[in-house]
Amino acid sequence: MTQTTFQLTPELVKAAQAAMRSRDRDEIAKYWDPGVRFLVPGNHPYAGWREGLDEFMSFHNKLVELSGGSIRMEMFSVLVNEDGYSIDMNRCHATRVGAAPDSTSPYDQMRFEGVDVLKWENGRVVEGYAAIFGEGMTNWNLFLSPVTGDGHHVAV
Amino acid sequence: MTQTTFQLTPELVKAAQAAMRSRDRDEIAKYWDPGVRFLVPGNHPYAGWREGLDEFMSFHNKLVELSGGSIRMEMFSVLVNEDGYSIDMNRCHATRVGAAPDSTSPYDQMRFEGVDVLKWENGRVVEGYAAIFGEGMTNWNLFLSPVTGDGHHVAV
Amino acid sequence: MTQTTFQLTPELVKAAQAAMRSRDRDEIAKYWDPGVRFLVPGNHPYAGWREGLDEFMSFHNKLVELSGGSIRMEMFSVLVNEDGYSIDMNRCHATRVGAAPDSTSPYDQMRFEGVDVLKWENGRVVEGYAAIFGEGMTNWNLFLSPVTGDGHHVAV
Amino acid sequence: MTQTTFQLTPELVKAAQAAMRSRDRDEIAKYWDPGVRFLVPGNHPYAGWREGLDEFMSFHNKLVELSGGSIRMEMFSVLVNEDGYSIDMNRCHATRVGAAPDSTSPYDQMRFEGVDVLKWENGRVVEGYAAIFGEGMTNWNLFLSPVTGDGHHVAV
Repeated sequence: MTQTTFQLTPELVKAAQAAMRSRDRDEIAKYWDPGVRFLVPGNHPYAGWREGLDEFMSFHNKLVELSGGSIRMEMFSVLVNEDGYSIDMNRCHATRVGAAPDSTSPYDQMRFEGVDVLKWENGRVVEGYAAIFGEGMTNWNLFLSPVTGDGHHVAV
Repeated sequence: MTQTTFQLTPELVKAAQAAMRSRDRDEIAKYWDPGVRFLVPGNHPYAGWREGLDEFMSFHNKLVELSGGSIRMEMFSVLVNEDGYSIDMNRCHATRVGAAPDSTSPYDQMRFEGVDVLKWENGRVVEGYAAIFGEGMTNWNLFLSPVTGDGHHVAV
Repeated sequence: MTQTTFQLTPELVKAAQAAMRSRDRDEIAKYWDPGVRFLVPGNHPYAGWREGLDEFMSFHNKLVELSGGSIRMEMFSVLVNEDGYSIDMNRCHATRVGAAPDSTSPYDQMRFEGVDVLKWENGRVVEGYAAIFGEGMTNWNLFLSPVTGDGHHVAV
Repeated sequence: MTQTTFQLTPELVKAAQAAMRSRDRDEIAKYWDPGVRFLVPGNHPYAGWREGLDEFMSFHNKLVELSGGSIRMEMFSVLVNEDGYSIDMNRCHATRVGAAPDSTSPYDQMRFEGVDVLKWENGRVVEGYAAIFGEGMTNWNLFLSPVTGDGHHVAV
């Protein structure tokens, strides 16, 4: 695939995110560069730059594991431009595996809106950064906190 | 101005942000709805929803005041879409007024990249949210912290 | 009262804390120096050094106000020494005024254990620092947060 | 050693902390119960309850490793009481291994005052909690942060 044949469209962004959610490496590699780096937001043990597709996929797998598969992301708008950037806006929610079903604690329930900023080259994502709006950031940090609300250390 | 005559372009976004930086209320009101609400990111005394143009402008004025006018924002890419959203990506830096000139403390020096998400109706911004990437968020919270690094309470 | 007549005992510490809870200024002034400074823990609009008895009392009054009078502190052990320090260990809980009665949110419910370290001179407290154990600190910061869990700005 | 022969004194507390700093397991076991649990303050990958002497020692060893052996703790006052509690007050500082020598970043330089609360039974410590005053807590969290100031993920 060459730069000339590559069209950055909302449909392409949706396909790339659906591929990542599928957890099928061959499907993912159609849209995400093997050298992709991604900045996970917040300050917690999974935060910071994930270098390469494997490290980035392992972060996604961790979110699935921590949420017992309950994590859901609803993309409600997508933007693209001629600089090679896409930004998809998302609502995300998840419940921690093992949480009491009626717990409303931010350590157990995650709910936020945010963006995924993706930089594309030659039809694939080469760099990305996520960001979260408002107190969704505090919720995200506590959901991924290395210590529970009652002070138990979480192995990471 | 009616919906039919309104074209959401990167140029319009740049003009809206330049107007806000000008601090000229008449100029600002061309682009920002009087009822605009804006979600300031982070957890600090200026965080959360600012309701209405006056409250939002007073937040901008506070940033200018705290930084002794040193705050700079460099917009490096803009995206717009047909849902009425614009997102501008920015690098921002500032030095706190009164900081020692060589201080590198995150309470004194602010430097981050982030996005402003704006929702437009009838040619004006009606809602917005900012978000910050990576540890820029920690830097932002400490720059706007109600307590200094050596523990002095800051009146807000 | 002179240094020679002053005996730092657990009973004196209990009397000083009871006086502060009474909110009776004359009673308080028996145990707390007019120039007392106190370091409120955490990073929130009431954190940092409170300088002088009036500023310190206004912090206590704020806690009573924010909790609709529900704040309770149970002292479970007291230590004193010959350097003029006392440390009382406390369990503290409060419910934010206006919170839904069944809310378990850390923005609404405060529950922690911590210490008050007091330095005594001539029979009165001249300096103090509080500190909180474990995730009680996160709870304290969210209870006193300038932004609610759903992002509303709180005037402080 | 039986309860009747055990005297909780400042000298015993100093000996117990000196033993922990020696990193000599036999020496440590004279003062610290094999089943001791200790609540490490803050929200970072080493925070929360450390269960048992080995887990607690491995936390101390981690601090030595992260600071390249530079960590220093100066005990400036000790309190004990008849409930079996000791509290030692400390000033602590450290420089992260690999930090630029002139870095003043809170991710690289740690400096705080705080307390170690220890509960003694039969001459040995069975439970403890540390707490940190003021913005020393923010410094501690950033020094032990799983992400550097420029966003690099730190393996923990």
